[in-house]
Amino acid sequence: MNVVFIGSGNVATHIAKAFKASGANITQVWSKHREHATALSVLVDAQVIPDLENIDPSADLYVIAVKDDAIAAVSCALSAVNGTVVHTSGATDISVLSGIRNFGVIYPLQTFSKDTAISFTNVPLCIEAKDSNLLGELKEIAGQLSPLIYEVDSERRRILHLAAVFACNFVNHLYTLSDRVLQHNGLNFELLKPLIAETALKVQTQAPVTVQTGPAVRNDVETMAKHLDLLVDMPELKEIYQTLSSSIKKHTNC
Amino acid sequence: MNVVFIGSGNVATHIAKAFKASGANITQVWSKHREHATALSVLVDAQVIPDLENIDPSADLYVIAVKDDAIAAVSCALSAVNGTVVHTSGATDISVLSGIRNFGVIYPLQTFSKDTAISFTNVPLCIEAKDSNLLGELKEIAGQLSPLIYEVDSERRRILHLAAVFACNFVNHLYTLSDRVLQHNGLNFELLKPLIAETALKVQTQAPVTVQTGPAVRNDVETMAKHLDLLVDMPELKEIYQTLSSSIKKHTNC
Repeated sequence: MNVVFIGSGNVATHIAKAFKASGANITQVWSKHREHATALSVLVDAQVIPDLENIDPSADLYVIAVKDDAIAAVSCALSAVNGTVVHTSGATDISVLSGIRNFGVIYPLQTFSKDTAISFTNVPLCIEAKDSNLLGELKEIAGQLSPLIYEVDSERRRILHLAAVFACNFVNHLYTLSDRVLQHNGLNFELLKPLIAETALKVQTQAPVTVQTGPAVRNDVETMAKHLDLLVDMPELKEIYQTLSSSIKKHTNC
Repeated sequence: MNVVFIGSGNVATHIAKAFKASGANITQVWSKHREHATALSVLVDAQVIPDLENIDPSADLYVIAVKDDAIAAVSCALSAVNGTVVHTSGATDISVLSGIRNFGVIYPLQTFSKDTAISFTNVPLCIEAKDSNLLGELKEIAGQLSPLIYEVDSERRRILHLAAVFACNFVNHLYTLSDRVLQHNGLNFELLKPLIAETALKVQTQAPVTVQTGPAVRNDVETMAKHLDLLVDMPELKEIYQTLSSSIKKHTNC
């Protein structure tokens, strides 16, 4: 299978490496950022193309992994290809690709960072296609990367993406804030790492609402007041502390 | 070593089991909740005492693991003992025990839930003692439970406890909220589990601020607007979304 990549960021890089590892050929890489395209092309042994007009129209699969607001523009350049064109965005409707002959979505529900290797066998891939024939094909293609294949339409994919913002992006930011609190007081983030790992591990087997701990769920007013005192120099963290604590109280009692 | 437990909740139970496993004898358990005391006593082969007045004054160690606001009251009953008395609270000053001959703190920086086994070898234990002699003793005692022993005074322990609220309690609540978003739309929390695991794994080796992903850090205004639209029926989640997104934008740019 010959695959062309449009985009060369974290998502493109991780998916391209996974396709390569599954035995596919990555034939071309295009990116607005030429130096990123070059870096990816070296990793997966592909050719960099300077313009989308140079795209090979005979590839089997075209993977669009660019910023959401650039998908529409790059897809115009793919209107003449015969192969299947997929985008990889959680928040973007499949219809953005409707000017293309065969189109679909492969949305990897995972967080990808530079320099962090990911085992794709543990990445849920949410797929959608313009029709059921193509859906069958995409299932097979995506199945070469991961056993966790889910059919998810655009509406539900948007919801998943939103839930992922809470469970990943916001969670990571709370890690950052805890690190700030520690640094502000000369303490090391290292001490929190076992706690962070255990907190994520618990919800792999139990519903999060059932394993909530801490002063808010106990309605331990005294401890919460002490914590707010400690945040007197950090008004932004104080607001977040109050907002989340009052939300915990609400959700636990209903 | 003979150890008496005051309290029989999650923290008491996990520490008592760890002491038992390390070869100590748990001789007595007292709790305001008689049936919890009985359950713990069965687990660690100890005697339940109905009143604190029945406490054995000759034990080596007394572990107080009750609600923070009850520590002062139970410690009064321990003023005559010869052994070392420790509390296990992150938010409580060591001075609450100052009426006792030998006193200190062993604060396990971990989240403990009923029905979730914990390997204590991966639990940081923050210790403090009334003097350096006792600190040495506590190091040895705590060292039988975990290799991760840190000397942390009351002021810094309070900070750690606060940071843990962000990195654990608030994080777990975000898992709960993401579950709500999914349930509200007929989707399964299962799909988010690899993402949750990976998000916690990444910060074991990288500073969280360096691995932040998502629409807020990219300042992807369009996606954030779409997400807020999806939360129109959930005003509380909408507020949290806005608060955390604007915090992400601030912290990433500084």
